[in-house]
Amino acid sequence: MPSFRLDLSYDGTDFAGWQVQPSHRTVQGEVERVLAAVLGSPVRVFGSGRTDSGVHALHQVAHFRAETALGPDVIVRALRGLLPRDVALLGVTFAPDRFDARRSAVRRTYRYRLFLGRDPFLRRFAWEIPFSIERGAMEEAASHLPGESDFTSFAASTRKGRENTVRVERAEWRWSGQLGEFEIEANRFLHHMVRNIVGTLIETGRGARPPESMPGLIRARDRSAAGPTAPARGLFLVRVDYGEEERGRGENGGEVDEVLFGYGRLGRNS
Amino acid sequence: MPSFRLDLSYDGTDFAGWQVQPSHRTVQGEVERVLAAVLGSPVRVFGSGRTDSGVHALHQVAHFRAETALGPDVIVRALRGLLPRDVALLGVTFAPDRFDARRSAVRRTYRYRLFLGRDPFLRRFAWEIPFSIERGAMEEAASHLPGESDFTSFAASTRKGRENTVRVERAEWRWSGQLGEFEIEANRFLHHMVRNIVGTLIETGRGARPPESMPGLIRARDRSAAGPTAPARGLFLVRVDYGEEERGRGENGGEVDEVLFGYGRLGRNS
Repeated sequence: MPSFRLDLSYDGTDFAGWQVQPSHRTVQGEVERVLAAVLGSPVRVFGSGRTDSGVHALHQVAHFRAETALGPDVIVRALRGLLPRDVALLGVTFAPDRFDARRSAVRRTYRYRLFLGRDPFLRRFAWEIPFSIERGAMEEAASHLPGESDFTSFAASTRKGRENTVRVERAEWRWSGQLGEFEIEANRFLHHMVRNIVGTLIETGRGARPPESMPGLIRARDRSAAGPTAPARGLFLVRVDYGEEERGRGENGGEVDEVLFGYGRLGRNS
Repeated sequence: MPSFRLDLSYDGTDFAGWQVQPSHRTVQGEVERVLAAVLGSPVRVFGSGRTDSGVHALHQVAHFRAETALGPDVIVRALRGLLPRDVALLGVTFAPDRFDARRSAVRRTYRYRLFLGRDPFLRRFAWEIPFSIERGAMEEAASHLPGESDFTSFAASTRKGRENTVRVERAEWRWSGQLGEFEIEANRFLHHMVRNIVGTLIETGRGARPPESMPGLIRARDRSAAGPTAPARGLFLVRVDYGEEERGRGENGGEVDEVLFGYGRLGRNS
Protein backbone atom coordinates (compact mmCIF):
# COMPACT_ATOMS: atom_id res chain seq x y z
CA MET A 1 0.00 0.00 0.00
CA PRO A 2 1.68 3.24 -1.10
CA SER A 3 2.68 5.79 1.49
CA PHE A 4 2.31 9.51 0.83
CA ARG A 5 3.75 12.62 2.42
CA LEU A 6 1.60 15.78 2.53
CA ASP A 7 3.11 19.25 2.99
CA LEU A 8 0.67 21.97 3.92
CA SER A 9 0.18 25.42 5.36
CA TYR A 10 -2.77 26.92 7.18
CA ASP A 11 -4.20 29.99 8.80
CA GLY A 12 -5.23 28.50 12.14
CA THR A 13 -7.63 31.32 13.10
CA ASP A 14 -10.81 29.51 12.21
CA PHE A 15 -9.74 25.99 13.18
CA ALA A 16 -10.08 24.22 16.51
CA GLY A 17 -6.48 23.07 15.97
CA TRP A 18 -5.02 20.23 13.93
CA GLN A 19 -6.55 17.17 15.51
CA VAL A 20 -9.93 15.73 14.58
CA GLN A 21 -12.62 16.39 17.19
CA PRO A 22 -16.33 15.67 16.91
CA SER A 23 -18.33 18.73 15.80
CA HIS A 24 -15.31 21.00 15.51
CA ARG A 25 -13.66 22.28 12.36
CA THR A 26 -10.08 21.01 12.44
CA VAL A 27 -7.29 20.92 9.85
CA GLN A 28 -6.91 17.14 10.03
CA GLY A 29 -10.68 16.82 9.68
CA GLU A 30 -10.80 19.02 6.58
CA VAL A 31 -7.87 17.22 4.94
CA GLU A 32 -9.34 13.77 5.69
CA ARG A 33 -12.78 14.80 4.40
CA VAL A 34 -11.37 16.06 1.11
CA LEU A 35 -8.92 13.18 0.72
CA ALA A 36 -11.73 10.66 1.24
CA ALA A 37 -13.67 12.34 -1.57
CA VAL A 38 -10.65 12.14 -3.89
CA LEU A 39 -9.70 8.54 -3.03
CA GLY A 40 -13.24 7.25 -2.72
CA SER A 41 -12.75 5.77 0.74
CA PRO A 42 -12.00 7.03 4.27
CA VAL A 43 -8.37 7.63 5.10
CA ARG A 44 -6.56 8.62 8.27
CA VAL A 45 -3.97 11.42 8.00
CA PHE A 46 -1.17 11.61 10.58
CA GLY A 47 0.47 14.96 11.32
CA SER A 48 3.98 15.67 12.61
CA GLY A 49 2.28 17.00 15.73
CA ARG A 50 -0.88 18.70 16.86
CA THR A 51 -1.16 22.44 16.61
CA ASP A 52 -3.59 23.96 19.10
CA SER A 53 -6.71 25.92 18.32
CA GLY A 54 -5.75 29.18 16.57
CA VAL A 55 -2.11 28.22 15.93
CA HIS A 56 -0.90 28.60 12.33
CA ALA A 57 1.42 26.51 10.18
CA LEU A 58 3.70 27.92 7.53
CA HIS A 59 4.72 24.34 6.88
CA GLN A 60 3.18 21.28 8.48
CA VAL A 61 3.97 17.72 7.37
CA ALA A 62 1.63 14.72 7.45
CA HIS A 63 1.47 11.23 5.99
CA PHE A 64 -1.18 8.76 4.94
CA ARG A 65 -1.32 5.29 3.41
CA ALA A 66 -3.94 4.40 0.84
CA GLU A 67 -4.66 1.69 -1.70
CA THR A 68 -4.94 3.88 -4.76
CA ALA A 69 -3.80 3.97 -8.35
CA LEU A 70 -3.70 7.78 -8.26
CA GLY A 71 -0.24 9.34 -8.29
CA PRO A 72 0.87 12.36 -6.23
CA ASP A 73 0.36 14.84 -9.08
CA VAL A 74 -3.27 13.89 -9.55
CA ILE A 75 -3.88 13.91 -5.80
CA VAL A 76 -2.33 17.39 -5.50
CA ARG A 77 -4.56 18.85 -8.18
CA ALA A 78 -7.70 17.25 -6.81
CA LEU A 79 -7.00 18.32 -3.23
CA ARG A 80 -6.15 21.87 -4.28
CA GLY A 81 -9.50 22.15 -5.98
CA LEU A 82 -11.38 20.98 -2.88
CA LEU A 83 -9.55 22.32 0.18
CA PRO A 84 -10.94 25.42 1.90
CA ARG A 85 -9.16 28.71 1.35
CA ASP A 86 -7.44 28.74 4.73
CA VAL A 87 -5.46 25.57 3.95
CA ALA A 88 -2.86 25.49 1.18
CA LEU A 89 -1.39 22.26 -0.06
CA LEU A 90 2.32 22.72 -0.71
CA GLY A 91 2.76 19.27 -2.18
CA VAL A 92 2.09 15.54 -2.12
CA THR A 93 4.93 13.07 -2.69
CA PHE A 94 5.50 9.33 -2.37
CA ALA A 95 7.12 8.57 0.99
CA PRO A 96 9.28 5.60 2.06
CA ASP A 97 7.17 2.89 3.72
CA ARG A 98 8.69 3.62 7.10
CA PHE A 99 8.04 7.39 6.89
CA ASP A 100 6.01 8.58 9.86
CA ALA A 101 5.37 12.33 9.97
CA ARG A 102 5.58 12.41 13.76
CA ARG A 103 8.05 9.67 14.70
CA SER A 104 10.51 10.32 11.86
CA ALA A 105 10.79 14.04 12.64
CA VAL A 106 14.13 15.01 14.12
CA ARG A 107 13.54 18.72 14.64
CA ARG A 108 10.66 21.23 14.76
CA THR A 109 10.87 25.01 14.40
CA TYR A 110 8.26 27.40 15.79
CA ARG A 111 8.07 31.15 15.45
CA TYR A 112 6.13 33.50 17.73
CA ARG A 113 5.32 36.97 16.44
CA LEU A 114 4.73 40.10 18.53
CA PHE A 115 3.63 43.47 17.28
CA LEU A 116 4.37 46.46 19.50
CA GLY A 117 1.20 48.43 18.83
CA ARG A 118 -1.83 47.83 16.66
CA ASP A 119 -1.96 46.68 13.07
CA PRO A 120 -5.20 45.64 11.38
CA PHE A 121 -3.35 43.49 8.85
CA LEU A 122 -1.25 41.57 11.37
CA ARG A 123 -3.85 41.16 14.12
CA ARG A 124 -4.72 37.57 13.14
CA PHE A 125 -1.03 36.67 12.95
CA ALA A 126 0.65 38.42 15.88
CA TRP A 127 0.18 39.22 19.55
CA GLU A 128 -0.38 42.97 19.66
CA ILE A 129 1.38 44.35 22.75
CA PRO A 130 0.19 47.74 24.04
CA PHE A 131 3.08 48.29 26.49
CA SER A 132 6.79 48.80 26.04
CA ILE A 133 9.30 46.00 26.57
CA GLU A 134 13.03 45.76 27.12
CA ARG A 135 14.37 43.80 24.18
CA GLY A 136 17.82 43.21 25.68
CA ALA A 137 16.32 41.48 28.73
CA MET A 138 14.18 39.22 26.54
CA GLU A 139 17.19 38.29 24.42
CA GLU A 140 19.27 37.53 27.50
CA ALA A 141 16.52 35.38 29.03
CA ALA A 142 16.13 33.48 25.73
CA SER A 143 19.87 32.79 25.61
CA HIS A 144 19.45 30.45 28.62
CA LEU A 145 17.04 28.14 26.78
CA PRO A 146 19.30 26.12 24.44
CA GLY A 147 20.52 22.80 25.78
CA GLU A 148 18.92 19.57 26.99
CA SER A 149 16.67 20.23 29.99
CA ASP A 150 13.49 19.12 31.67
CA PHE A 151 11.03 21.80 30.51
CA THR A 152 8.21 20.89 32.93
CA SER A 153 8.05 24.55 34.02
CA PHE A 154 6.75 25.41 30.55
CA ALA A 155 4.47 22.38 29.99
CA ALA A 156 0.70 22.78 30.09
CA SER A 157 0.15 19.53 31.93
CA THR A 158 2.54 17.37 33.90
CA ARG A 159 1.22 13.89 33.59
CA LYS A 160 2.82 11.45 35.96
CA GLY A 161 5.71 9.50 34.50
CA ARG A 162 5.75 11.78 31.47
CA GLU A 163 9.17 12.42 30.03
CA ASN A 164 9.62 16.20 29.74
CA THR A 165 13.23 16.37 28.57
CA VAL A 166 13.64 18.46 25.45
CA ARG A 167 16.77 19.42 23.51
CA VAL A 168 16.46 23.07 22.47
CA GLU A 169 18.90 23.77 19.66
CA ARG A 170 18.24 27.46 19.07
CA ALA A 171 16.08 30.18 20.68
CA GLU A 172 16.40 33.76 19.55
CA TRP A 173 14.63 37.04 19.00
CA ARG A 174 14.73 39.15 15.86
CA TRP A 175 13.33 42.65 15.57
CA SER A 176 12.27 44.86 12.73
CA GLY A 177 10.60 48.11 13.68
CA GLN A 178 7.54 47.32 15.79
CA LEU A 179 7.65 43.63 14.89
CA GLY A 180 9.40 41.05 17.04
CA GLU A 181 9.82 37.35 16.31
CA PHE A 182 10.96 34.63 18.65
CA GLU A 183 12.15 31.52 16.86
CA ILE A 184 12.87 28.26 18.60
CA GLU A 185 14.14 24.92 17.30
CA ALA A 186 14.03 21.71 19.31
CA ASN A 187 13.83 17.96 18.80
CA ARG A 188 10.27 18.11 20.15
CA PHE A 189 7.94 20.43 22.08
CA LEU A 190 5.74 19.96 25.13
CA HIS A 191 2.13 21.11 25.11
CA HIS A 192 1.96 24.96 25.19
CA MET A 193 5.74 25.08 25.61
CA VAL A 194 6.44 27.88 23.12
CA ARG A 195 3.51 30.02 24.28
CA ASN A 196 4.47 29.56 27.94
CA ILE A 197 8.08 30.50 27.17
CA VAL A 198 6.93 33.61 25.29
CA GLY A 199 4.57 34.62 28.13
CA THR A 200 7.53 34.32 30.49
CA LEU A 201 9.88 36.25 28.20
CA ILE A 202 7.32 39.06 27.97
CA GLU A 203 7.25 39.28 31.77
CA THR A 204 11.03 39.58 31.63
CA GLY A 205 10.71 42.32 29.02
CA ARG A 206 8.34 44.24 31.29
CA GLY A 207 10.83 44.04 34.15
CA ALA A 208 8.70 41.64 36.21
CA ARG A 209 11.40 38.97 36.36
CA PRO A 210 15.16 39.26 35.83
CA PRO A 211 16.62 37.52 32.77
CA GLU A 212 19.13 35.65 34.92
CA SER A 213 16.27 33.91 36.74
CA MET A 214 15.66 31.72 33.67
CA PRO A 215 18.06 28.84 34.56
CA GLY A 216 16.51 28.57 38.05
CA LEU A 217 13.03 28.66 36.56
CA ILE A 218 13.87 25.73 34.30
CA ARG A 219 15.40 23.81 37.23
CA ALA A 220 12.25 24.40 39.31
CA ARG A 221 10.23 22.05 37.04
CA ASP A 222 7.12 23.84 38.23
CA ARG A 223 4.61 25.33 35.81
CA SER A 224 3.42 27.83 38.42
CA ALA A 225 6.91 29.37 38.52
CA ALA A 226 6.68 30.47 34.86
CA GLY A 227 4.63 33.20 33.17
CA PRO A 228 1.22 33.11 31.45
CA THR A 229 0.45 31.41 28.13
CA ALA A 230 0.84 33.79 25.18
CA PRO A 231 -2.16 33.86 22.78
CA ALA A 232 -2.32 31.26 19.99
CA ARG A 233 -2.63 33.76 17.15
CA GLY A 234 1.08 34.74 17.28
CA LEU A 235 2.35 31.15 16.94
CA PHE A 236 3.45 29.49 13.70
CA LEU A 237 4.82 26.01 13.07
CA VAL A 238 7.57 26.97 10.63
CA ARG A 239 9.13 23.66 9.64
CA VAL A 240 9.61 20.03 10.49
CA ASP A 241 12.92 18.36 9.64
CA TYR A 242 13.49 14.70 8.90
CA GLY A 243 16.61 12.55 8.71
CA GLU A 244 18.17 12.11 5.28
CA GLU A 245 16.70 8.65 4.59
CA GLU A 246 13.26 9.34 5.99
CA ARG A 247 12.60 12.49 4.03
CA GLY A 248 10.46 11.06 1.28
CA ARG A 249 10.87 11.49 -2.43
CA GLY A 250 11.34 15.13 -3.34
CA GLU A 251 10.75 18.22 -1.28
CA ASN A 252 8.24 20.63 -2.61
CA GLY A 253 7.38 22.68 0.42
CA GLY A 254 8.72 25.92 1.71
CA GLU A 255 6.90 28.11 -0.77
CA VAL A 256 4.53 29.62 1.71
CA ASP A 257 7.21 30.74 4.08
CA GLU A 258 8.99 32.41 1.24
CA VAL A 259 5.80 34.01 0.08
CA LEU A 260 4.71 35.30 3.44
CA PHE A 261 7.97 37.05 3.87
CA GLY A 262 8.49 37.72 0.18
CA TYR A 263 5.66 40.12 0.80
CA GLY A 264 8.25 42.60 2.03
CA ARG A 265 10.01 42.99 -1.25
CA LEU A 266 7.15 45.03 -2.65
CA GLY A 267 7.24 47.95 -0.21
CA ARG A 268 6.21 51.31 -1.55
CA ASN A 269 9.69 52.70 -1.71
CA SER A 270 11.50 49.63 -2.90
CA MET B 1 -14.41 75.35 16.41
CA PRO B 2 -11.17 73.36 16.08
CA SER B 3 -10.61 71.20 13.04
CA PHE B 4 -8.91 67.82 13.30
CA ARG B 5 -7.28 65.50 10.82
CA LEU B 6 -7.52 61.72 11.40
CA ASP B 7 -5.11 59.25 9.79
CA LEU B 8 -6.18 55.63 9.88
CA SER B 9 -5.74 52.19 8.46
CA TYR B 10 -8.20 49.32 8.20
CA ASP B 11 -8.70 45.75 7.16
CA GLY B 12 -11.83 46.17 5.01
CA THR B 13 -12.83 42.49 5.05
CA ASP B 14 -15.55 42.79 7.67
CA PHE B 15 -16.80 46.27 6.75
CA ALA B 16 -19.53 47.26 4.32
CA GLY B 17 -17.12 49.95 3.09
CA TRP B 18 -16.24 53.38 4.45
CA GLN B 19 -19.53 55.23 4.30
CA VAL B 20 -22.20 55.12 7.01
CA GLN B 21 -25.22 53.02 6.05
CA PRO B 22 -28.13 52.04 8.25
CA SER B 23 -27.70 48.60 9.83
CA HIS B 24 -24.31 47.94 8.26
CA ARG B 25 -20.93 47.94 9.94
CA THR B 26 -18.87 50.64 8.21
CA VAL B 27 -15.54 52.30 9.00
CA GLN B 28 -17.02 55.79 9.15
CA GLY B 29 -19.77 54.45 11.39
CA GLU B 30 -17.31 52.85 13.82
CA VAL B 31 -15.11 55.95 13.96
CA GLU B 32 -18.11 58.25 14.52
CA ARG B 33 -19.53 55.98 17.23
CA VAL B 34 -16.26 55.90 19.15
CA LEU B 35 -15.52 59.60 18.62
CA ALA B 36 -18.98 60.54 19.93
CA ALA B 37 -18.25 58.54 23.08
CA VAL B 38 -14.94 60.37 23.55
CA LEU B 39 -16.25 63.86 22.80
CA GLY B 40 -19.61 63.39 24.49
CA SER B 41 -21.64 64.48 21.48
CA PRO B 42 -22.33 63.25 17.96
CA VAL B 43 -19.81 64.21 15.32
CA ARG B 44 -19.62 63.75 11.57
CA VAL B 45 -16.35 62.43 10.14
CA PHE B 46 -15.51 63.16 6.49
CA GLY B 47 -13.19 60.81 4.60
CA SER B 48 -10.93 61.57 1.63
CA GLY B 49 -13.17 59.26 -0.36
CA ARG B 50 -15.33 56.18 0.06
CA THR B 51 -13.77 52.79 -0.07
CA ASP B 52 -16.16 50.04 -1.14
CA SER B 53 -17.19 47.02 0.85
CA GLY B 54 -14.16 44.77 1.42
CA VAL B 55 -11.57 47.31 0.24
CA HIS B 56 -8.68 47.98 2.65
CA ALA B 57 -6.80 51.14 3.56
CA LEU B 58 -3.15 51.24 4.50
CA HIS B 59 -3.64 54.95 5.00
CA GLN B 60 -6.94 56.78 4.81
CA VAL B 61 -7.37 60.43 5.83
CA ALA B 62 -10.48 62.04 7.34
CA HIS B 63 -11.39 65.25 9.12
CA PHE B 64 -13.91 66.42 11.69
CA ARG B 65 -14.77 69.63 13.49
CA ALA B 66 -15.81 69.59 17.13
CA GLU B 67 -16.23 72.02 20.00
CA THR B 68 -13.91 70.33 22.47
CA ALA B 69 -11.20 71.22 24.93
CA LEU B 70 -9.48 67.87 24.33
CA GLY B 71 -6.23 68.01 22.39
CA PRO B 72 -5.12 65.57 19.67
CA ASP B 73 -2.96 63.51 22.03
CA VAL B 74 -5.81 62.79 24.40
CA ILE B 75 -8.16 62.02 21.52
CA VAL B 76 -5.63 59.59 20.01
CA ARG B 77 -5.26 57.64 23.24
CA ALA B 78 -9.00 57.49 23.87
CA LEU B 79 -9.82 56.41 20.32
CA ARG B 80 -7.10 53.75 20.32
CA GLY B 81 -8.60 52.25 23.44
CA LEU B 82 -12.06 52.05 21.90
CA LEU B 83 -11.67 51.28 18.21
CA PRO B 84 -12.20 47.69 17.05
CA ARG B 85 -9.13 45.63 16.18
CA ASP B 86 -9.59 45.94 12.43
CA VAL B 87 -9.13 49.73 12.49
CA ALA B 88 -5.84 51.30 13.55
CA LEU B 89 -5.56 54.99 14.28
CA LEU B 90 -2.27 56.30 12.90
CA GLY B 91 -2.72 59.74 14.37
CA VAL B 92 -4.91 62.75 15.15
CA THR B 93 -3.61 66.29 14.53
CA PHE B 94 -5.01 69.81 14.45
CA ALA B 95 -5.84 70.77 10.86
CA PRO B 96 -6.10 74.21 9.24
CA ASP B 97 -9.69 75.47 9.24
CA ARG B 98 -9.98 75.06 5.50
CA PHE B 99 -8.69 71.46 5.53
CA ASP B 100 -11.16 69.11 3.86
CA ALA B 101 -10.03 65.49 3.60
CA ARG B 102 -11.77 65.04 0.26
CA ARG B 103 -11.62 68.45 -1.44
CA SER B 104 -8.08 69.31 -0.35
CA ALA B 105 -6.62 66.04 -1.63
CA VAL B 106 -4.47 66.46 -4.72
CA ARG B 107 -3.54 62.86 -5.34
CA ARG B 108 -4.62 59.33 -4.31
CA THR B 109 -2.62 56.12 -4.60
CA TYR B 110 -4.19 52.66 -4.78
CA ARG B 111 -2.51 49.30 -4.88
CA TYR B 112 -4.06 46.06 -6.14
CA ARG B 113 -2.47 42.79 -5.09
CA LEU B 114 -2.58 39.49 -6.97
CA PHE B 115 -1.27 36.17 -5.79
CA LEU B 116 -0.52 33.56 -8.44
CA GLY B 117 -1.65 30.49 -6.53
CA ARG B 118 -3.06 29.96 -3.06
CA ASP B 119 -1.83 31.38 0.20
CA PRO B 120 -3.81 31.07 3.43
CA PHE B 121 -2.12 34.14 4.92
CA LEU B 122 -2.70 36.45 1.96
CA ARG B 123 -6.21 35.30 1.00
CA ARG B 124 -7.93 38.24 2.74
CA PHE B 125 -5.51 40.69 1.13
CA ALA B 126 -5.00 39.51 -2.44
CA TRP B 127 -6.85 38.11 -5.43
CA GLU B 128 -5.67 34.51 -5.74
CA ILE B 129 -5.31 33.69 -9.42
CA PRO B 130 -5.35 29.99 -10.37
CA PHE B 131 -4.23 30.46 -13.98
CA SER B 132 -1.02 31.71 -15.56
CA ILE B 133 -0.68 35.23 -16.91
CA GLU B 134 1.69 37.04 -19.25
CA ARG B 135 3.30 39.75 -17.15
CA GLY B 136 4.83 41.59 -20.10
CA ALA B 137 1.42 42.08 -21.72
CA MET B 138 -0.05 43.42 -18.48
CA GLU B 139 2.83 45.86 -18.09
CA GLU B 140 2.48 47.04 -21.66
CA ALA B 141 -1.29 47.55 -21.29
CA ALA B 142 -0.73 49.49 -18.03
CA SER B 143 1.78 51.76 -19.75
CA HIS B 144 -1.08 53.27 -21.79
CA LEU B 145 -2.95 54.49 -18.70
CA PRO B 146 -0.99 57.59 -17.59
CA GLY B 147 -2.24 60.92 -18.91
CA GLU B 148 -5.46 62.90 -18.72
CA SER B 149 -8.36 60.94 -20.21
CA ASP B 150 -12.04 60.30 -19.88
CA PHE B 151 -12.10 56.98 -18.00
CA THR B 152 -15.81 56.23 -18.51
CA SER B 153 -14.87 52.78 -19.84
CA PHE B 154 -13.69 51.89 -16.33
CA ALA B 155 -16.43 53.63 -14.31
CA ALA B 156 -19.10 51.58 -12.53
CA SER B 157 -21.87 53.99 -13.38
CA THR B 158 -22.06 56.70 -15.98
CA ARG B 159 -24.40 59.27 -14.59
CA LYS B 160 -25.51 61.86 -17.10
CA GLY B 161 -23.46 65.03 -17.07
CA ARG B 162 -20.90 63.42 -14.81
CA GLU B 163 -17.35 64.54 -15.41
CA ASN B 164 -15.23 61.43 -15.91
CA THR B 165 -11.89 63.02 -16.75
CA VAL B 166 -9.07 61.74 -14.58
CA ARG B 167 -5.35 62.53 -14.64
CA VAL B 168 -3.43 59.29 -14.06
CA GLU B 169 0.11 60.09 -13.01
CA ARG B 170 1.54 56.60 -12.65
CA ALA B 171 0.34 53.04 -13.28
CA GLU B 172 2.73 50.14 -12.95
CA TRP B 173 3.16 46.50 -12.00
CA ARG B 174 5.75 45.10 -9.64
CA TRP B 175 6.41 41.41 -9.15
CA SER B 176 8.03 39.31 -6.49
CA GLY B 177 7.75 35.58 -6.89
CA GLN B 178 4.07 34.67 -7.01
CA LEU B 179 2.98 38.10 -5.82
CA GLY B 180 2.04 40.89 -8.21
CA GLU B 181 1.10 44.46 -7.31
CA PHE B 182 -0.44 47.08 -9.53
CA GLU B 183 -0.03 50.60 -8.20
CA ILE B 184 -1.82 53.59 -9.63
CA GLU B 185 -1.71 57.27 -8.72
CA ALA B 186 -4.23 59.82 -9.96
CA ASN B 187 -5.77 63.12 -8.94
CA ARG B 188 -9.02 61.24 -8.30
CA PHE B 189 -10.69 57.92 -9.07
CA LEU B 190 -14.07 56.96 -10.49
CA HIS B 191 -16.24 54.35 -8.78
CA HIS B 192 -14.70 50.84 -9.27
CA MET B 193 -12.06 52.35 -11.57
CA VAL B 194 -9.04 50.49 -10.17
CA ARG B 195 -10.86 47.17 -9.95
CA ASN B 196 -12.21 47.52 -13.50
CA ILE B 197 -8.73 48.38 -14.79
CA VAL B 198 -7.25 45.35 -13.00
CA GLY B 199 -10.00 43.05 -14.36
CA THR B 200 -9.14 44.32 -17.84
CA LEU B 201 -5.38 43.94 -17.34
CA ILE B 202 -5.92 40.35 -16.21
CA GLU B 203 -7.80 39.62 -19.43
CA THR B 204 -4.80 41.06 -21.26
CA GLY B 205 -2.50 38.81 -19.23
CA ARG B 206 -4.57 35.76 -20.22
CA GLY B 207 -4.26 36.68 -23.90
CA ALA B 208 -7.94 37.60 -24.26
CA ARG B 209 -7.22 41.16 -25.41
CA PRO B 210 -4.03 42.62 -26.91
CA PRO B 211 -2.16 45.21 -24.81
CA GLU B 212 -2.21 47.71 -27.66
CA SER B 213 -6.03 47.75 -27.54
CA MET B 214 -5.89 49.82 -24.33
CA PRO B 215 -5.85 53.32 -25.95
CA GLY B 216 -8.87 52.43 -28.09
CA LEU B 217 -10.65 51.00 -25.06
CA ILE B 218 -10.18 54.28 -23.17
CA ARG B 219 -11.38 56.28 -26.19
CA ALA B 220 -14.50 54.09 -26.44
CA ARG B 221 -15.90 55.58 -23.19
CA ASP B 222 -18.00 52.45 -22.87
CA ARG B 223 -17.98 50.34 -19.73
CA SER B 224 -19.07 47.26 -21.66
CA ALA B 225 -15.85 47.42 -23.72
CA ALA B 226 -13.69 46.80 -20.63
CA GLY B 227 -13.16 43.69 -18.50
CA PRO B 228 -14.83 42.48 -15.30
CA THR B 229 -14.47 44.08 -11.87
CA ALA B 230 -11.63 42.50 -9.85
CA PRO B 231 -12.59 41.43 -6.29
CA ALA B 232 -12.44 44.03 -3.51
CA ARG B 233 -10.13 42.03 -1.26
CA GLY B 234 -7.01 42.78 -3.37
CA LEU B 235 -7.49 46.57 -3.26
CA PHE B 236 -5.76 48.96 -0.84
CA LEU B 237 -5.98 52.73 -0.55
CA VAL B 238 -2.27 53.40 0.02
CA ARG B 239 -2.07 57.15 0.52
CA VAL B 240 -3.75 60.49 0.01
CA ASP B 241 -1.62 63.53 -0.73
CA TYR B 242 -2.44 67.14 0.10
CA GLY B 243 -1.00 70.46 -1.04
CA GLU B 244 1.71 71.96 1.15
CA GLU B 245 -0.54 74.46 2.93
CA GLU B 246 -3.48 72.14 3.40
CA ARG B 247 -1.59 69.33 4.99
CA GLY B 248 -2.40 69.99 8.61
CA ARG B 249 0.00 70.25 11.50
CA GLY B 250 2.43 67.36 11.52
CA GLU B 251 2.29 64.08 9.67
CA ASN B 252 2.17 60.98 11.75
CA GLY B 253 0.91 58.39 9.33
CA GLY B 254 2.68 55.93 7.12
CA GLU B 255 3.54 53.49 9.88
CA VAL B 256 1.20 50.80 8.77
CA ASP B 257 2.48 50.69 5.26
CA GLU B 258 5.99 50.35 6.54
CA VAL B 259 4.91 47.66 8.97
CA LEU B 260 2.97 45.62 6.47
CA PHE B 261 5.96 45.44 4.25
CA GLY B 262 8.49 45.52 7.08
CA TYR B 263 7.11 42.06 7.66
CA GLY B 264 9.49 40.83 5.01
CA ARG B 265 12.65 41.68 6.81
CA LEU B 266 12.17 38.80 9.22
CA GLY B 267 12.26 35.91 6.75
CA ARG B 268 13.62 32.60 7.97
CA ASN B 269 16.93 32.90 6.23
CA SER B 270 17.57 36.56 6.79
